[in-house]
Amino acid sequence: MGEFELLARVRERLPEPGTQVWLGSGDDAAVTVPEGATATSVDALVEGVHFRRDRASLAQIGHKALAAALSDLAAMGAEPGEAYVVLGVPKDLDEDGCIELLDGIGSLATATGTTLAGGDITRSAELILAVTVVGHGPISEAFITRDGARPGDALVLTGELGGAAAGHLLLERPGLADGLPEAVAGALCRRQLTPHPRLRAGRALAATGATAMIDLSDGLGGDARHLAERSSVGLRIDASALPLADGLAETAELAGCDPLALAVTGGEDYELLAALPPAQIEKAAQALRDADGTRLTAIGEVVAGSGVEIRLPGGELLEPLGFDQLA
Amino acid sequence: MGEFELLARVRERLPEPGTQVWLGSGDDAAVTVPEGATATSVDALVEGVHFRRDRASLAQIGHKALAAALSDLAAMGAEPGEAYVVLGVPKDLDEDGCIELLDGIGSLATATGTTLAGGDITRSAELILAVTVVGHGPISEAFITRDGARPGDALVLTGELGGAAAGHLLLERPGLADGLPEAVAGALCRRQLTPHPRLRAGRALAATGATAMIDLSDGLGGDARHLAERSSVGLRIDASALPLADGLAETAELAGCDPLALAVTGGEDYELLAALPPAQIEKAAQALRDADGTRLTAIGEVVAGSGVEIRLPGGELLEPLGFDQLA
Repeated sequence: MGEFELLARVRERLPEPGTQVWLGSGDDAAVTVPEGATATSVDALVEGVHFRRDRASLAQIGHKALAAALSDLAAMGAEPGEAYVVLGVPKDLDEDGCIELLDGIGSLATATGTTLAGGDITRSAELILAVTVVGHGPISEAFITRDGARPGDALVLTGELGGAAAGHLLLERPGLADGLPEAVAGALCRRQLTPHPRLRAGRALAATGATAMIDLSDGLGGDARHLAERSSVGLRIDASALPLADGLAETAELAGCDPLALAVTGGEDYELLAALPPAQIEKAAQALRDADGTRLTAIGEVVAGSGVEIRLPGGELLEPLGFDQLA
Repeated sequence: MGEFELLARVRERLPEPGTQVWLGSGDDAAVTVPEGATATSVDALVEGVHFRRDRASLAQIGHKALAAALSDLAAMGAEPGEAYVVLGVPKDLDEDGCIELLDGIGSLATATGTTLAGGDITRSAELILAVTVVGHGPISEAFITRDGARPGDALVLTGELGGAAAGHLLLERPGLADGLPEAVAGALCRRQLTPHPRLRAGRALAATGATAMIDLSDGLGGDARHLAERSSVGLRIDASALPLADGLAETAELAGCDPLALAVTGGEDYELLAALPPAQIEKAAQALRDADGTRLTAIGEVVAGSGVEIRLPGGELLEPLGFDQLA
């Protein structure tokens, strides 16, 4: 497989570039004309660390790499713009395999209005995907950073927690799925394999007054701590308010682990955690329903101080495992 | 080593962000306010494919990864802006090693006015660096693409050819260097290990009327073909006009290979090949001398037709090895 031939095949399959893209793939660089401010993020997935080829199809791996990168744009409230993809291709992945992988990226790009504007393909020992995404907004201040949460703000969360972690368990221990309705097990596995970045929800939260926002890639426990640290505030989360994915409780029981711990420490849900004034909660929830039906749940509050407390119904604190211990 | 601790150490060492960077590393995404058009390119270096840790220091590897990416911006005539770095870290590279590598990137970033605005660090089997760079220009049309060369244009080349290939030979076969003056051998090795992107020369060529431009990463033979194909023209190159690196002839003789073949097929010189109206050559050459002293040489012409001919003084054609055969 020659790099140039593969690149030519890839370029043929790219959807039409977006209006801000003046020159797409095929030159020394892509040329775009951003009409305001840009948010840029980069995310890498490595075989054996972030995925296994015997658990996910190549298209799913491609989808997830772009989804993880776009999720950072969702957390800024940005409009997705361009993506640049580095592919490290091991010897046992042929040209058709590369195309399947890039088709997985391309499908999500098309679905989200993202232009694949460039990339690089190289040999490597293991399969690697590094995706840079550029999102757009009218002005810098329109993006929601992690550092604007203020005491008195409410904490809200999109969607449900723990689905990706439950899906991971089901994929690791296939026998577990026998104890679940097929549709439920399938949905949980999809949460793990092909997560969807909350782009519309992120923009709706930005438009309705979110003061700080972060996406949950490492798990609520760890990511909430990042938001608290950057905003120099404390966060109090009500464990009983946490929206849990359908089938999480059953999967946890079958696997012999605590559903709440899974929900709080399991990463890769790619939901959004935001702070916003309590008076805005209902408006924000309505905006999310209007945007794409995503559910919004108030799960706690921002307080003066530091750290993250997750309080159980009985009043005692949940001590979530950190990201480091889990990984 | 925790990813977050390493990222915090890296952030401490980053130079001040450029004026277009509203928010640098540490949030979900970096935020910039481009004031016109942007050129974006991504380049990946993989251990064992693009470099070896027993031949190059970690700082040199970092330098080269950023240099290779910035060279694409040079070929657009862009002003360097931001860089985003993905680091795949193998088990035998510790935190201090990562810092040394990032310092190599940081030094070149500082020297070129590039802001390190974000990145991702992950485990991997081998050392991997993927660098996305964003350059700036007033409008899209100010960037020099590969497709504007017209019959009648002159072909010009910055700097000298074959230095990186000769340096590669000297590093692969250390005994060879004994036959060369130390300063010459050292300069050739530096051409291989720490190439410098021709950013100032690229902007000077853009400002003085270049109609098409490409950087020589794969070698003159292959890269000239890319320019010819994208511009739908033929290129005639006069082999006797090619500026060869000091010490290339001696190194080739010691290694028993043809210096011209090395100059034409050896990649990684990161010089710029441009087409421009013949009347502009002197003005462009002066602009390069004024910018940073880079030499500009007329090496041939753009003709109607297709393909690349490199003609030897006797009139016969040089048949350069393609990139695929060489790699």
